[in-house]
Amino acid sequence: MIRDFPEPSSDKAEQEGPGALAPAFDANGLVTAVVTDAADGELLMVAHMNAEALALTIDTGIAHYYSRSRRKIWKKGETSGNLQTVHDIRTDCDQDAIWLKVSVAGHDATCHTGRRSCFYRIVEKQGDEGVLRIADDHRHFDPAQVYKPDGTK
Amino acid sequence: MIRDFPEPSSDKAEQEGPGALAPAFDANGLVTAVVTDAADGELLMVAHMNAEALALTIDTGIAHYYSRSRRKIWKKGETSGNLQTVHDIRTDCDQDAIWLKVSVAGHDATCHTGRRSCFYRIVEKQGDEGVLRIADDHRHFDPAQVYKPDGTK
Repeated sequence: MIRDFPEPSSDKAEQEGPGALAPAFDANGLVTAVVTDAADGELLMVAHMNAEALALTIDTGIAHYYSRSRRKIWKKGETSGNLQTVHDIRTDCDQDAIWLKVSVAGHDATCHTGRRSCFYRIVEKQGDEGVLRIADDHRHFDPAQVYKPDGTK
Repeated sequence: MIRDFPEPSSDKAEQEGPGALAPAFDANGLVTAVVTDAADGELLMVAHMNAEALALTIDTGIAHYYSRSRRKIWKKGETSGNLQTVHDIRTDCDQDAIWLKVSVAGHDATCHTGRRSCFYRIVEKQGDEGVLRIADDHRHFDPAQVYKPDGTK
């Protein structure tokens, strides 16, 4: 069981090399997590992890995040059943981002709106404004049926 | 030319719907940017954008970020020649993350270490520790030749 991570190295070459995972947590103790589908590479979501969430993810092979709004560990899919099994974990050059390749159980949906991916909208330019067009409106589940009426998840 | 973005809506359904792009910038005025290759979907990098970087990206079709270390707008590839042409911009449900699908000019490398992607290392568990294994060590360019000796880029 992973209990802690070493401090990031102040030696840039060391931080960028092989060796111990030494995540560069930000001032709030978080790294960014990017989540793609292990089967086809689709970008599903972006979230955050604290040390505990990252350790739990590595230890259990099930994705855990840190919910900034609820200020607690968030085992993704615990309510909806859409648990994420982790196939591969990577980190980037300065170790402040984590990439999970996952397969999604349940409805095969990651977004709380019921869509497969949280990135269901395309940004387009109209005159001097950015406008959002919905590119995917297929709901794999009905959020009202899956989450509590108060919107908690 | 985009000069500003509207405030995010306090109405969750509105923030998640079609309509004006209303990025939910964090306390530092930033959103997370996830960058994938438009051709094969490979995750290339994770960075941050302030309002100016996002507006410049939408306006010019060339990826701009905000460098937190240098505290200024960062036109990716300006030194290395590896400019990113943006094919598609998406945002997620709460509009605090941006996804760019890009094609990379120059060396077709995104990482400052010369590799194609910043995510060149796999996290593995060894006993009670996370260990990094280098999965891609092919350098598309020599960083010492491309960047200044002091490591600025």
